[in-house]
Amino acid sequence: MNGFFELIKEASDCKARVGKITTSHGVVNTPVFMPVGTQGTVKAMEQQELQDIGVEIILNNTYHLSLRPGIDIISKAGGLHSFINWQRPILTDSGGYQIFSLDALRKVNDEGVEFQSHIDGSYHLLTPERSIELQIAFGGDLIVVLDECIPYPVTYDRAKRGKDRTTQWAKRSLHTFNTQRSTFNERQVLFGVVQGSVYKDLREESVSELGELDFPGYAIGGLSVGEPKIITYEVLEWVCSILPKDKPRYLMGVGPPEDILECIERGVDMFDCVIPTRHGRTGSVLTRKGELHIKNACYAEDLKPIDIDCGCFTCKNYSRAYIRHLINSQEILGARLNTLHNLYFIVKLIEEVRMSILEDRFMKFKRTFLEKYQEGEDGGQDL
Amino acid sequence: MNGFFELIKEASDCKARVGKITTSHGVVNTPVFMPVGTQGTVKAMEQQELQDIGVEIILNNTYHLSLRPGIDIISKAGGLHSFINWQRPILTDSGGYQIFSLDALRKVNDEGVEFQSHIDGSYHLLTPERSIELQIAFGGDLIVVLDECIPYPVTYDRAKRGKDRTTQWAKRSLHTFNTQRSTFNERQVLFGVVQGSVYKDLREESVSELGELDFPGYAIGGLSVGEPKIITYEVLEWVCSILPKDKPRYLMGVGPPEDILECIERGVDMFDCVIPTRHGRTGSVLTRKGELHIKNACYAEDLKPIDIDCGCFTCKNYSRAYIRHLINSQEILGARLNTLHNLYFIVKLIEEVRMSILEDRFMKFKRTFLEKYQEGEDGGQDL
Repeated sequence: MNGFFELIKEASDCKARVGKITTSHGVVNTPVFMPVGTQGTVKAMEQQELQDIGVEIILNNTYHLSLRPGIDIISKAGGLHSFINWQRPILTDSGGYQIFSLDALRKVNDEGVEFQSHIDGSYHLLTPERSIELQIAFGGDLIVVLDECIPYPVTYDRAKRGKDRTTQWAKRSLHTFNTQRSTFNERQVLFGVVQGSVYKDLREESVSELGELDFPGYAIGGLSVGEPKIITYEVLEWVCSILPKDKPRYLMGVGPPEDILECIERGVDMFDCVIPTRHGRTGSVLTRKGELHIKNACYAEDLKPIDIDCGCFTCKNYSRAYIRHLINSQEILGARLNTLHNLYFIVKLIEEVRMSILEDRFMKFKRTFLEKYQEGEDGGQDL
Repeated sequence: MNGFFELIKEASDCKARVGKITTSHGVVNTPVFMPVGTQGTVKAMEQQELQDIGVEIILNNTYHLSLRPGIDIISKAGGLHSFINWQRPILTDSGGYQIFSLDALRKVNDEGVEFQSHIDGSYHLLTPERSIELQIAFGGDLIVVLDECIPYPVTYDRAKRGKDRTTQWAKRSLHTFNTQRSTFNERQVLFGVVQGSVYKDLREESVSELGELDFPGYAIGGLSVGEPKIITYEVLEWVCSILPKDKPRYLMGVGPPEDILECIERGVDMFDCVIPTRHGRTGSVLTRKGELHIKNACYAEDLKPIDIDCGCFTCKNYSRAYIRHLINSQEILGARLNTLHNLYFIVKLIEEVRMSILEDRFMKFKRTFLEKYQEGEDGGQDL
């Protein structure tokens, strides 16, 4: 995968970096935030809207899409891009995370994970090979090996077994990938997943073992699973310091804006998180002064936009009072307007981060942003 | 209200007519379909989308908006147009229909109707005067007097009492309107409501009594409340034949496309109905070959658009298979795409109707449309 990732700039005073991922569906500038499109749609949004906001890549979930609508129709459509009508890059995950987190898990052994569908209770076996086969058929641009998700806290021995299994699964995934690619997208790229919980030597082993397989990108798993943030950052620092510089690093499932900035500082390139979409639907919106809860009574007659300095469609057209009414009335338009605003917020924030790294002033940008962000909204309290 | 309604063309072989309503928020060409925006939003849609489809006027419900968010914030915003950011015409109803239909009704007497809020159970009294005060404060372009909604079947005596009460309420409404208008919209226009159930002489009395009050427009109430369609059409024919030709006629709550055509033939100018929006959200879409139920298994791998001849955004961008997946997965985008398609369908249909009346070929247009519409979708059966 020559030329898949280009490292463009590193900060002089921290590990933040700017890069560029090139796929057959276009370029992704890193650091990047990937909105989550669990079931082949970023909830409440339409694909053209995502593009207009500046979203360069979305994430789709293999677990959900393989159960419904299923691989047959997505294959028949010519892959996910065509099925969902999104022509920019897509990352698909392995499906493992949902199985481990949705109480769907029945049994895990070296072969794979047996689980029950959350839709109809039917039994399925997800193996490393099957995950890759599904992802090849979906035709996502970036795909991820199946790993064993280790909870926190966990003993050293259990963490080691999970890490070892993840390495074995990575080998089998790579074999399937190399022998079966590629139905719809010949430039698909496979990411390995670093495991090892909070144990430094296990993380080192994981990076070293995966390194021998020469993955073009690395996901970092087993973080943000309940451990204190100080530990998240410590582990991230170890891992990023030993990962090859010329390959992108994807921290799965993170996070709120302030956490994303901390992780960018430590060398992470790619993020996905449901916060902008999920919080938007329930009435929490991101502003430069922190998260604002639109249901609060203080916004009942507030005719200002969510964020007066924001250039998004929502803020240019609708007031807090109207959006509050929509959310309180459980109207779809409320979910739409908030989600659009939140995604715009995070996309523009990351664009500014990239600019600040290119101009080698990221740490200052981060400090200035966080100061204001942690200050809070003037009207952010309940009356 | 000179120049409020202009009758442009009448068909030579039926009562269909083309007209033009002029409001301070622009022109409405009749016949017209008004999408229902119950709570200040046409469900699943955004205002700019409605405009792009060609929607010229929407309906908002006084009952819902007066309970939530309430008159204070809407007044503070400068009226509904400003509060919801919709700059084209708005019709508000009187609030009576919801009270009579939502089991909210506690007591009705000559004074008004006492009801309980469906939101918090609180007691409210809606009088003809209060309904007009609310509608004046909302600033809708077309507003409607409170009437007593008579169910079907009903005795002659009960129907007569309802009609008499509606006439009395119309007088009180007009008095309030003339003395209190107008906060935000000085060109507001008040519609009377014709009642009298299925009794010809009561309908004649109603039209005659309202005629003395010289309303600039007439709503036709007490139809489509459970009576057989043949009776609906018979009553409509009486009523339209005695209503003044130079004033618009609004049939409240109708209906499916085929019913709208029947009523246009009999002289109705204005319609509102939740079918395009409500059915869209649950997966029923309108096509030239009839209603199509996207959840049917036969559409699971159907990569065609909903309607191959349709020019709407949905049909230009998304397949039946994808939309079926979205609806089955209860994704908001499914509701959005179907609603957009259905509203586009009905708006374009009515545009074609207007053209056919202008060219005096409405009856032929109607026959051709209904033949195909009643034929049904090729794949419209469950597998």
